[in-house]
Amino acid sequence: MTTDAGLLLVGLRCVLCGTAHRPTIDASVCPRHDGLAGILDVVIPAAGARSGAGDDPLDRYRSQLPLPPGPRRLPSGYLTTTPLLPAPRLAADLGVAELLIKDESRNPTGSLKDRSSALAVELAAHAGFTDIACASTGNAASSLAGACAAVGLTARIFVPAATPPGKLAQLAAFGAEVMLVRGSYDDAYYLCEEAAHAFGWYDRNCAVNPYLMEGKKTCALEIADQLGNAGADWVSVAVGDGCTVAALGKGLAEMRLPRTPRLLAVQPAGAAPIADAWARGDENAVPVTANTLADSVSVGAPRNAVKALRAVRAGGGAFVTVTDDEILEAARILGTRAGVFAEPGAAAGIAGVRRARAEGLIGPDDRVVHVVTGSGLKTAAPVGAAFPEIAPTLDAVRAVVDLG
Amino acid sequence: MTTDAGLLLVGLRCVLCGTAHRPTIDASVCPRHDGLAGILDVVIPAAGARSGAGDDPLDRYRSQLPLPPGPRRLPSGYLTTTPLLPAPRLAADLGVAELLIKDESRNPTGSLKDRSSALAVELAAHAGFTDIACASTGNAASSLAGACAAVGLTARIFVPAATPPGKLAQLAAFGAEVMLVRGSYDDAYYLCEEAAHAFGWYDRNCAVNPYLMEGKKTCALEIADQLGNAGADWVSVAVGDGCTVAALGKGLAEMRLPRTPRLLAVQPAGAAPIADAWARGDENAVPVTANTLADSVSVGAPRNAVKALRAVRAGGGAFVTVTDDEILEAARILGTRAGVFAEPGAAAGIAGVRRARAEGLIGPDDRVVHVVTGSGLKTAAPVGAAFPEIAPTLDAVRAVVDLG
Ligand SMILES: Cc1ncc(COP(=O)(O)O)c(C=O)c1O
Ligand SMILES: Cc1ncc(COP(=O)(O)O)c(C=O)c1O
Ligand SMILES: [Zn+2]
Ligand SMILES: [Zn+2]
Repeated sequence: MTTDAGLLLVGLRCVLCGTAHRPTIDASVCPRHDGLAGILDVVIPAAGARSGAGDDPLDRYRSQLPLPPGPRRLPSGYLTTTPLLPAPRLAADLGVAELLIKDESRNPTGSLKDRSSALAVELAAHAGFTDIACASTGNAASSLAGACAAVGLTARIFVPAATPPGKLAQLAAFGAEVMLVRGSYDDAYYLCEEAAHAFGWYDRNCAVNPYLMEGKKTCALEIADQLGNAGADWVSVAVGDGCTVAALGKGLAEMRLPRTPRLLAVQPAGAAPIADAWARGDENAVPVTANTLADSVSVGAPRNAVKALRAVRAGGGAFVTVTDDEILEAARILGTRAGVFAEPGAAAGIAGVRRARAEGLIGPDDRVVHVVTGSGLKTAAPVGAAFPEIAPTLDAVRAVVDLG
Repeated sequence: MTTDAGLLLVGLRCVLCGTAHRPTIDASVCPRHDGLAGILDVVIPAAGARSGAGDDPLDRYRSQLPLPPGPRRLPSGYLTTTPLLPAPRLAADLGVAELLIKDESRNPTGSLKDRSSALAVELAAHAGFTDIACASTGNAASSLAGACAAVGLTARIFVPAATPPGKLAQLAAFGAEVMLVRGSYDDAYYLCEEAAHAFGWYDRNCAVNPYLMEGKKTCALEIADQLGNAGADWVSVAVGDGCTVAALGKGLAEMRLPRTPRLLAVQPAGAAPIADAWARGDENAVPVTANTLADSVSVGAPRNAVKALRAVRAGGGAFVTVTDDEILEAARILGTRAGVFAEPGAAAGIAGVRRARAEGLIGPDDRVVHVVTGSGLKTAAPVGAAFPEIAPTLDAVRAVVDLG
């Protein structure tokens, strides 16, 4: 809710210097630090679980979210409670007592990012913005484009010109205004920031807009509600910029469970600046040149390392890294053993569970939640040659069946 | 539930001659007719709405479904209640008072077919089958593959060898046993029937297995619950084989609403054998050579025409046909005006609403439900050239914004 002055009824505090800031709808970073380093944290006054009713997390957890007052702009049910599904065959493969999959591919545009984009749209529309800007080639952009289309706002998406055309299909379907920026992802990002400022567009970049993490947080609030008294030992998720794992940690902490699960934060070995900082016991991620096939977590210069490292440490969790081969194998067993089609970035956490189990971090009696952050349909590569071609006869079928 | 003899507690009646059949789990067609024409209808003894609790339709509507007794095989929450979302901007475009989208792309593998595949898996697993067979290149196959992977059954999928490799990605992800049959879709279909019989595989072909329609029916049961007293005037959906529209009609009728919505059954002009039969006042669809870009409803020789025609007639509905251009335009406005990315077959119903509105069949004050039967992510074509490429400068952004 907002006060009369248009302020949201939450606190804002700089993660670096602790300074409090006014919770305006367009709040950004703390100006006392270089560039965009002074990321703000949202402080919810009404801490502790206060789940309302209903299936839409923005309704259900309204009291724990920086939502403006008045009627919602997106229809109720645009976001839904995603299922938490036991996957006993996958648990057996991984050697853990229980594995539960939080299936975020059920979200409206197929990823967990829908949660923060929905919140962004509510905030921007309430404050009278007509355009929302975002620099992304992936799930953040498509989720913003979908939510904007649903309410009639314009999504301004900045992507590097070299972005594969396949990634733009969903943006085109939602009628987003896409700009192909000649340059790197960083060029697109800084141009987006500059343009949002210059043209008065609402900023949907997770490192700059402190409220977006609260949208992602609803995933953890649901997990806590769905786990109930049984609880869980671990929640595993892949880490790119660090916003998602930080949001999960924040949500789990706010629910004040009898036993808060620990976070298993998983990075691809080829893009592991935050895991490296963790290993060094440092809070500063040193940028690397990212090299991994898990494109949604292929982040060399993460913007939310501080929040991520603190969240994982606070809950007694850990970082692990996994190879691309391990990620591919994780995606394969998610599909074949659990019936969940995940993009590589959304499967990496399963590779992390295997790694943590091998290292003894996760035990055989543990109950583990893995968050499938996005659908494999977005990154599906054509296949075919691998399947047998047969004549239309029973004998031909028999030959194949006997081989299997 | 089943009786001691392993029979399901429902009736089975031939749609052609009315003969009653024993409700065995592997019941198939009535043998008194040529080939597979004698399709059976499931008769639910406990008619009338008896919604239970919970979000999973197989739990919630258990009393109205041919489900075996005992614990479920798929985890609760594998299927969820999909949202019914008001789309006011789309309603304005179409000139109707209200448009509500039943978003079936939220299902576990992205289509309405997940509802019948889930039921098939429950039935097959209960009866001790280890394999389930299906001839399809599309949503039926991928939904079967996903549900089988979740419980550890083997999905045997028969597709024509000419199937585009993109369509096989989801099947590969779920580890389905796919056979590329040299021949037409009909060759694949009849080989699948023969092989299922020969090798003792459970049959997941909607025209032969009478229970599958009951799974799809849950979509209509949810719509009826979600509409509540306000009701609706029309429910629009695209028609291929005819199973889906028949299932929606059956579900709406069983809920005994104060006012049952009429069905708007929409076929592409290039694959409209059931709409043609409707126009002739006939119950026999004459096969055509299908030619439409809406691949999931590109059916020249529909297997469920009788059920479809009767369901539409019983509710006072109508058939309309739409061109491929109208379907593409419908997909465009679904994405840009409602934020829902639908495959062409799932958008055709919107083109049908526009057509029916123009013809005066649907009025300006009508409340219309459209069922988005499957996600656009499965058929997304790469795009890119359409977006402007710019230098990383504010002036370049300004030039694009000014043009827009
Ligand atoms: C599918 C998927 N998984 C994981 C992540 C990681 O989230 P974050 O960058 O907030 O760490 C992302 C972010 O883009 C994602 O799209
Ligand atoms: C997305 C989609 N829409 C509509 C239909 C039509 O269903 P039916 O063939 O039962 O008429 C299908 C069936 O394959 C489908 O996949
Ligand atoms: Zn500061
Ligand atoms: Zn008969």
